[in-house]
Amino acid sequence: MLTYDLQKTEGPLYETLYNAIKTDILTGVLEPNEKLPSKRRMASNNGISVITVENAYGRLLSEGYIQSKPKSGFYVCDIKGLEHEIPKTDIFEPSKNDAIQSKHIADFSNNQTPTDLFPFDDWSKATRSVLSRKHEELLENSPSCGVLQLRRSIAEYLKEYRGLEVDESTIVVGAGSEFLYGLIVQLIGRDVVYGIENPGYRKQELTYKAQGVQVEHLRIDDKGVQAEELEDKDIGVVHITPSHQYPTGIVMPISRRYELLAWAAEKQGRYIIEDDYDSELRLDGKPIPSFKSIDREGCVIYLNTFSKTLCSTVRISYMVLPPRLVRLFNERLSFYSCTVSTFEQYTLLEFMESGRIGTHINRLRTYYRRKRDAFIDALKKSQLGAHVEISGEKAGLHFLMKVHTQKKEEDVMRAADLEGIGLCSLSSFPRKNSETGAHATDSNTFVMNYATLDVSRLDEIIGKLCRVFV
Amino acid sequence: MLTYDLQKTEGPLYETLYNAIKTDILTGVLEPNEKLPSKRRMASNNGISVITVENAYGRLLSEGYIQSKPKSGFYVCDIKGLEHEIPKTDIFEPSKNDAIQSKHIADFSNNQTPTDLFPFDDWSKATRSVLSRKHEELLENSPSCGVLQLRRSIAEYLKEYRGLEVDESTIVVGAGSEFLYGLIVQLIGRDVVYGIENPGYRKQELTYKAQGVQVEHLRIDDKGVQAEELEDKDIGVVHITPSHQYPTGIVMPISRRYELLAWAAEKQGRYIIEDDYDSELRLDGKPIPSFKSIDREGCVIYLNTFSKTLCSTVRISYMVLPPRLVRLFNERLSFYSCTVSTFEQYTLLEFMESGRIGTHINRLRTYYRRKRDAFIDALKKSQLGAHVEISGEKAGLHFLMKVHTQKKEEDVMRAADLEGIGLCSLSSFPRKNSETGAHATDSNTFVMNYATLDVSRLDEIIGKLCRVFV
Repeated sequence: MLTYDLQKTEGPLYETLYNAIKTDILTGVLEPNEKLPSKRRMASNNGISVITVENAYGRLLSEGYIQSKPKSGFYVCDIKGLEHEIPKTDIFEPSKNDAIQSKHIADFSNNQTPTDLFPFDDWSKATRSVLSRKHEELLENSPSCGVLQLRRSIAEYLKEYRGLEVDESTIVVGAGSEFLYGLIVQLIGRDVVYGIENPGYRKQELTYKAQGVQVEHLRIDDKGVQAEELEDKDIGVVHITPSHQYPTGIVMPISRRYELLAWAAEKQGRYIIEDDYDSELRLDGKPIPSFKSIDREGCVIYLNTFSKTLCSTVRISYMVLPPRLVRLFNERLSFYSCTVSTFEQYTLLEFMESGRIGTHINRLRTYYRRKRDAFIDALKKSQLGAHVEISGEKAGLHFLMKVHTQKKEEDVMRAADLEGIGLCSLSSFPRKNSETGAHATDSNTFVMNYATLDVSRLDEIIGKLCRVFV
Repeated sequence: MLTYDLQKTEGPLYETLYNAIKTDILTGVLEPNEKLPSKRRMASNNGISVITVENAYGRLLSEGYIQSKPKSGFYVCDIKGLEHEIPKTDIFEPSKNDAIQSKHIADFSNNQTPTDLFPFDDWSKATRSVLSRKHEELLENSPSCGVLQLRRSIAEYLKEYRGLEVDESTIVVGAGSEFLYGLIVQLIGRDVVYGIENPGYRKQELTYKAQGVQVEHLRIDDKGVQAEELEDKDIGVVHITPSHQYPTGIVMPISRRYELLAWAAEKQGRYIIEDDYDSELRLDGKPIPSFKSIDREGCVIYLNTFSKTLCSTVRISYMVLPPRLVRLFNERLSFYSCTVSTFEQYTLLEFMESGRIGTHINRLRTYYRRKRDAFIDALKKSQLGAHVEISGEKAGLHFLMKVHTQKKEEDVMRAADLEGIGLCSLSSFPRKNSETGAHATDSNTFVMNYATLDVSRLDEIIGKLCRVFV
């Protein structure tokens, strides 16, 4: 019976399955012309949906790893020499999940949000209401930057959740943050260097490169990126996560923010992108004011998404542009159709206006806070308690755990794997060899994504972690 | 009472209103500090929705033409000197709709589709079904190229409606055609020249320029673009509408298609984008095979949209990539999240699988065929009958009408306007001065968008057209 461990994943489940099967084919575990289980069988073997299998098989088919024989099923292709045909580019990096992992009982490398938290009832209500009441509005083309009432509602939401006062006319709604990164490039241009955090969120780099711009990695010290390095590397646009740096969890202090603002103000055309991807899920402590709120010169582009607060499959993100860029957007890019359908814009509007989003976010916060508290409490009370330093735990769905141990990180990783614990080390974040950030030598520091942690098995999990580290 | 004619529009209604008010401000008809009607009043004065007014006012606000005073209303700004602040770029062209038009009884320059044709009941049914049955699927991240079952359903649809056999693994779903143009640029790169039809669809040019690529206009003869010119201008990618050229309605004959294929096959990396934007609405005559169906070398990217068959506000388009580009897409761009939410992907899937889309398209065809036939019949039986040549009428929602008359086109346009008829002349399509296509001297040729024509007033409309031309 062909089964795989499908817990260890950064991306969608089908991709993990795809990678697992692909690895088996490349390593000869699955031989040329061997028949694969039917989609239904594969799904039930692995306790996943048929759709996941279909998506994985589909990708294997399209890349030539397997073939479909009518009325018979799926067969492994003879892939000798196939690899040479794949055009290699500097953008493509093979997934880190290619290797098959043993079954995990806890996977802290999985940064997906639990799907059972989506408010289906309320979303369905909003959808029904919109579909029955708003025929005319649904069919009227949305402005390029999004339907006015939705932008107004987002402005109110930003005021409530981020203490940020913005005018609705400065908001641009788009189908996901990556799409908005692309719009920013189209707006500001490809003649400037884009700086990203190192370590940071990998899709930023991939998106900017796909958009054809030069990207530079910027070192993170304990306050975030540094103005001098922006100067040195001749950065034009810097993309940061100041309220909860991904993945380190660092909050950029106000002094550093002013240094960056001074850098931006020094030369026209310099911009700071504030990626506020998980700010609504700040779980405790004083709220961190947004970077945008201290921007007097109009240098900050504020960017946020509903991926964390709703789900990653409703594709709605938004950005708040400074006045200069609003005007430029209206002149250059307002010919574009908005990429979010009016049907979903109005549904989200209804969901927000009815107050359901507030209830939902409170529910999320409570859920995650309990999970995090239980986990950290158990860690501290355990044998490990004296050996760990935890940081960045006040927001978002991950924190950083530094473990003081004599063991080597690679041995720790191997031991964790054997115990069925998925770990994600800070040192595994992409970093060019020539670059050594302040954290580059922080071995045995781990990004702990706890959103999918099974609290009912906490004792067992902590026990395993102790064996791994101590 | 401030009223505007809001019929004469290529784009959304709010834009026409925005342009009308902006013109009044720029020309001093509305004076600095003058108060505008409330949104509700403006809406009821003009017989439009409050939303349209909100969107127009929102844009005027964001561009600084008007200002909002709390608890008082909207006031015209003093815009002296404002125009100088707007960054001029080679991309920005002021809308042709800036001038206010008199009230029209028929507007053949309006290429929006009538909104009362959207199948709300069936769409709602599909939505309900998906929201109640597919929780797991809706929350699973879609592959970058779209959910497999939807791609499979699109493949079947292409077979049925276009006789096109494609594998679902070669389909990429995205939030609108403009978004897909952008993906193509990211895929093929910015080092090649992109050729577009002249005259052609203006958003193509705007999108390619925003994506930072060099665009060349290509002359259209009576068969479409010419291989020699592609060669001469060193084109790498040519974007065409071979089944119903926009706006001329020319169908590219098979001989010319093979010439273009030969051009593409000559050098690696040359591609033809077949934009099949309205093929399902071919109203009679033999179906035109798609260009893609004769592509043996894998040089054709097929592109289509649900904007014409559903509505322009559900943002779902798709493209079929040749194998080389499928592989490149999987390697380079599959890290992207799909820009269409799974909620809408599954709704469309349900709408297609249930067969409702077929019923709907048949209904559209009947509706448009009747309208077109009534219009052309009435034209031919009228005094104008002996003076007009009609072409490109077999598909889509517009045809070309060449009128043999001694009158100058500019006089005709003026007379039409006075009669309340909106005309769109072929010569008004953007064309660089240096370029003179085969049709450049075709004065008195008009693009007749008949989708919104009020058939009950046909006699009156034909009477007016006769007075204008004869």
